[in-house]
Formats: sequence, structure tokens, C-alpha cells
Amino acid sequence: MAAAGLRRGGQVFCRQLGFSAGWHSLPRRSLSTVFKASDMQIELNKRPNQKPDPGKLVFGKTFTDHMLAIEWSNEKGWEKPCIKPFQNLSLHPATSALHYSLEIFEGMKAFRGIDKKVRIFRPMLNMERMHRSAVRMTLPSFDKAELLECIRKLIEVDQEWVPYSDTASLYIRPTFIGMEPSLGVMKSNYALLYVILGPVGPYFSTGSFSPVSLLADPRFVRAWMGGMGDYKAGGNYGPTIHVQNEAAKQGCQQVLWLYGDDHQITEVGTMNIFLYWINEHGEEELVTPPLNGVILPGVVRRSLLDMSLQWGEFKVSEKTFTMNDLIKGLEENRVKEVFGSGTACVVCPVNRILYKDKNYHIPTMENGPYLAKRFLKELTDIQYGRTPSEWMLSI
Amino acid sequence: MAAAGLRRGGQVFCRQLGFSAGWHSLPRRSLSTVFKASDMQIELNKRPNQKPDPGKLVFGKTFTDHMLAIEWSNEKGWEKPCIKPFQNLSLHPATSALHYSLEIFEGMKAFRGIDKKVRIFRPMLNMERMHRSAVRMTLPSFDKAELLECIRKLIEVDQEWVPYSDTASLYIRPTFIGMEPSLGVMKSNYALLYVILGPVGPYFSTGSFSPVSLLADPRFVRAWMGGMGDYKAGGNYGPTIHVQNEAAKQGCQQVLWLYGDDHQITEVGTMNIFLYWINEHGEEELVTPPLNGVILPGVVRRSLLDMSLQWGEFKVSEKTFTMNDLIKGLEENRVKEVFGSGTACVVCPVNRILYKDKNYHIPTMENGPYLAKRFLKELTDIQYGRTPSEWMLSI
Repeated sequence: MAAAGLRRGGQVFCRQLGFSAGWHSLPRRSLSTVFKASDMQIELNKRPNQKPDPGKLVFGKTFTDHMLAIEWSNEKGWEKPCIKPFQNLSLHPATSALHYSLEIFEGMKAFRGIDKKVRIFRPMLNMERMHRSAVRMTLPSFDKAELLECIRKLIEVDQEWVPYSDTASLYIRPTFIGMEPSLGVMKSNYALLYVILGPVGPYFSTGSFSPVSLLADPRFVRAWMGGMGDYKAGGNYGPTIHVQNEAAKQGCQQVLWLYGDDHQITEVGTMNIFLYWINEHGEEELVTPPLNGVILPGVVRRSLLDMSLQWGEFKVSEKTFTMNDLIKGLEENRVKEVFGSGTACVVCPVNRILYKDKNYHIPTMENGPYLAKRFLKELTDIQYGRTPSEWMLSI
Repeated sequence: MAAAGLRRGGQVFCRQLGFSAGWHSLPRRSLSTVFKASDMQIELNKRPNQKPDPGKLVFGKTFTDHMLAIEWSNEKGWEKPCIKPFQNLSLHPATSALHYSLEIFEGMKAFRGIDKKVRIFRPMLNMERMHRSAVRMTLPSFDKAELLECIRKLIEVDQEWVPYSDTASLYIRPTFIGMEPSLGVMKSNYALLYVILGPVGPYFSTGSFSPVSLLADPRFVRAWMGGMGDYKAGGNYGPTIHVQNEAAKQGCQQVLWLYGDDHQITEVGTMNIFLYWINEHGEEELVTPPLNGVILPGVVRRSLLDMSLQWGEFKVSEKTFTMNDLIKGLEENRVKEVFGSGTACVVCPVNRILYKDKNYHIPTMENGPYLAKRFLKELTDIQYGRTPSEWMLSI
């Protein structure tokens, strides 16, 4: 049964308003500027689903029995958080999330450790990024620690959905949408913060790395200075699908996003990017673009930087580098590895870049990839509890 | 009664699936690559709402009794178009429109002519732009003429909602969203095209022009080359609200969007922009930025260009101009009028720009505004049927 592992909270039914857009006229009460996890109301799913085989999971298609939902209105502030059966949202056709993309999200993971305990990976970094995205999108503020505690409770309720596997995990998708039921382009008077969960398999199904090929076409620009490319907003993703399809047509698996007249290398697909090489001064160096406004501040990006800084074995740089820098490095045999980093894969090696109609082979796989493999091992050792770490939050 | 004016179509009930995300397993049938207005199913609203006083309308807050909805799936293609009572959408929490901004829309208007007949303003231009936006957002293709005929039928059903007023109108909001119920960033296997309608009042409530002041701050960039700023996608709008709020804090009513190191003038708020001046060569000239990739191809923009080209009284240019060009023109007393153009207001005069902490007075109002007023009169004469025109489509 889905609630077998429930340790706290009884079966309290949520108020029946559900996800209505909230334009009802309700009695006035004091404005709640924060929601509190201790106010959580829980309605358990009476028809829990069967858990899938961890070996057959496809990313993002399977969801757990419950979801977290917290409604906000300008008039009343935050409602009580609510864990309820996973269910459709009922949205007014003019909902601002559907017209003006008032929507932000997060992506994070919980893991079943080798001791069978469930832990979340660096969740406070996601809460901080989510809060930052919300403010930029003029969605209401919230207490980051309270949201994290709400998410912890949700995972607790659905903890049997965290795969008993040291390659699979539970993907966590906090989502925050504007619910204004009118068409003016303005700050929404209604909002809904909700969190859904789903078990996901390993990114590399074979267990070993499969490198990806990239299309680098400067005609397509993911993000720009003065825009929102450094926030996790829905509007950064939809426009990339067309470009991803263009990459596939040209025989590439993902997009390498360039920026500026000098073709700065910024991100790869939906991941941050790292270059491990011998730099122009003969130094062994790990490079990733700086958080200059067009780079998403990835949690795995931060973690790889943190780990390598702690090792202290090579130079670690957040600096801009261009296609020409990379090509020169390739020509001079100074490039060791190129890889993406993200929540889905941890690290994803790159073996080829198609740029200006020319294929550039990247010798990532020939070089081990030593560093990518080391990152993957050290990070998954932490995530699955083989290496104790303060980065993990126990459920 | 809402359906008093219904001329065609009986009371046919839509299939009961409604707006479900469509992950059900249904029997296979042939794929429909287009939908046809002649297949329309109509379910009339049995509880029609009272029509509001045309003098008290607020933009985008009141909706008519019916909506148009057309579902699509990759497996089955387009379903039959359906006119049904205005109602909430039931969306899976992972719906791709809510996570990755797979959403595009249009804005257009129908008018009650002085002969009481209802007409839509240049709707095929909106259909063409919508189709272009859909393709770029990897949403499914559709037949533009069929969609327009479906919209015409919807307005026919709700025709009594078109205000009996020669200042108010019926706003039409076609919306097209990705309905994929999973979290992969990919082309959606499900989509929903729907259209909602709402009566709207005059933009300038007093009946005479109220000029707006603009914040021009190069730190904020609306759109960029290689992005989607020239498409009507939701992701172009949400991020602007924060900037609009910043403008308000600085005592300005709207945002003047600049682009590039030379601070090119691109758009104003959610409108295109026009400059009417004596240019550097002493010529009387109407200028608006060219459709270079960061400019929305506005229907009113096109109409003002078409009208003034037909007049042949002054030079008409689609060309880039910068803040420095404007400031030099102001200093040399060559600027006559600056105004925005859009579906909401037709034309909207600008009287002040705050740029680099300095206020620049624009003498638009002092100059009549002759051209803005002439555009408004000629266009509203067409829209309200005082001047016969091929631009109007009769319902």
C-alpha cells in the first residue's frame, strides 16, 4: 500500500475547493505571507497504483500516488499545504500560465541508499533557485525551508515509490504557476505551487557512458543577456525543441548553445557544460562558463566545481570559452574531456561537435573519460549513501 | 438568450472526453491531418451569463458563454472542432504547456458596425501568424482558413456578446497549448487549440488620447536574434511583467524595449512602435523597426504601414533607429510623434522617455497628434463599418 511508510500525519481531507482558480468570494481572513509544513493537510490516495519495474522506467512518464499543492491569492496569501491524490488540475482557460508563461519549475532527485534509507540531493540549492525564479517571474515569495519540509513530507508519503535500486531514483518536480484568470499582462493575483514525483531509471541504460554528438549552430540562441536564461522558467525550454529537432535532422543528438559574435560555448541541451583540458598556459584545467546571465546555475554544476576545488588537483575555472578556443585546443591535442552536467545524467560525455558544416571529434571517450567517470562515481557514492555527506537530506 | 442569434448548427453534444490529456487507449482510426469547420459539434450553454455594460468593461476579465476547442494527438491527428460552454480545462499536472511553455496565442477583435453587423479585423493575418508560431513551437499544423471559419462560427454563436457600441469590441483569444502529460523536453504528442472571447471597452476610457511615459533601460532585453521574439509565444510575455513593475516604480507607465549596444528602439510594452519625424535628410518620414527577428509582426503595425503607403504623402520606412537617433531628432526639433500600435489601443501616443536617468519629452501631443489621430480615425472607421473595406470579414 502506498501509505505503508507513513510516519506522521493522519488522514485529513483537503478542503474541497481543489485547484479552482480561486475567483470565488470567500470570507476575509488575515493574509498568510508564508505557508507552514506543520499545517499540512493530507488526503491519502485510496486507489494507489502499482509501482513499475525499476529496470523499465522512462523519464517523466510515471508518477507517484500523491502530489503536494499549495494555493496562493493576493487577497488571502498562502493556503495550507495539501498532500492529495495525484490528479488533474482544473484551470480557467485564461490562466496566465497558459498565455504568458507565468511558470517556473525545479528538477531534483531522491535516492534509495544502500542502507534502504531515502535521501534528497542538495535540495536547499533547488529551493533557493526556485525562490529566485519566482521573484523574477513576479510569483509570490515563500519560505524555502518550509517548502523543503513539505516536499520531504510528500516523499515520506510516497517513499515506497523511491526505487530499490542503486541506479534508479525518484525525480522531484516542483512547479509554480500563475493562476490569474484574466488576459491582462500583469502580476498574477492567484498562483499554485505544486510538486509531483516520479521514479526514473538510469540515464545511461547500459550502465556505461554513451557519448553524445552536438550541433553547434549560431543561428539558434538559447538565452541572452538581459533575459531570463539564468532562471529555471518554462519559457527557456519550449523554444529549444525545434532546435533539438534540427540537430536530430543533422545527425546530432543534442544542441550546443553558442552565444555572441565570438561563439561562446554556454550550455548543452538542457545541461551545463564542462571542458577538461590543458589550457593555453600548459595548466591542467577544468572550465565551465561563468554565471554571467545566460547560464543556468545548475546544482550538479555547482557540485562538480565544489568537488574538484576540494580535491585541489587541477585548476578550476568559471570562465568564458569560445568555439575557437575549443578548436585550437583540439588541434593542439590539449582537450581531454568535454561533458554536460545535469540532474538527469550527472555527467554526459561529448564525442563530436558539428560546427559550420565540419565535424570535430572530441576525444572524451579515448581519455577514459577519467574525470567524468570519477565525478559520476564520487557523486553517485554520495547520492546512494555509500559515502556519507552533508549534501544529502534524509527523509 | 446567448444563442438567440444562432443561424446554423443544432445542439450537438460534444463527446464526453472533454479536455482530458488524452493518454487513454482508444480504438485506432485514420489520422486527421486537418480539422474542418463543417465537422463542428455544438453544445450550447444552458446557463448563459448576463452581458456586461459596455461602458464598464475591463480588458480580459469578462468572457462569453462559449468557447471553441479542438484536440490533437500524434496518434489520431485532429478531433472534430467543438463549440461548448465556457469551462475550465482539466490538465495533467505534467502538461508540457505548464512546464516548458509550449504555448502560443493570438489577439484579434470583432466589431459591431454602425449597421449592427459584426465583422472581424484582418483575421487571416492572425491565422498566418498563429500557424507560423505553432510550427516554430513544434505544435501541429492546421488549415488556417478552417480555423478562421471555426472562429467565425464561435462568434456567430456568441454574437450578442459583441458590444452594441462604436468604442467597445469583442476580443478574440486563440490559444494553442502542448498537452503532453510527461516531463521529457520534446515535441508534444498531444495538443489543444482553443479560442475564448470577451467583450472589451475602449483603451482610452475618456475617448481622447492619454499619452504614456516609457522607461528605456538597456539592462532589460525583451527578445534577441536567434530567439522567438518575432513569434506570439507565451514565453515572451511573463518575463516582461517584472520589468513593467520596475518601470512603474520609476514613474513610467510602460517599457521601451532596447536592443544591442547601440540601443536600438524595438517595441513598447506589448506594442510595435512608430516614429513620425523629419529625418536626417529633411524628409517627412514614418519609421518603424524592420521585422529583423526581434520584432513581433503586428497586424496593426502592418495596417498603419499599408494605409500610409497607400496615402503616399510621406516617406514610409521599416528601418532600425536608435535612442541616439531619437535624441538627436528631439534636440533638432525634428520629432513630430511617437506612438505604439496594437490590437488593444490601435495607436497609443508617447509623451516621455526616461533613459539613462534623464527624461526626454516627446512632443506627440503638442503636434496633435495629427498622424496618430488620423490613423485611429481611419482604422476605426473601417472596423466599425463606416468605411467599407476588404480588411473586414463579416460574421
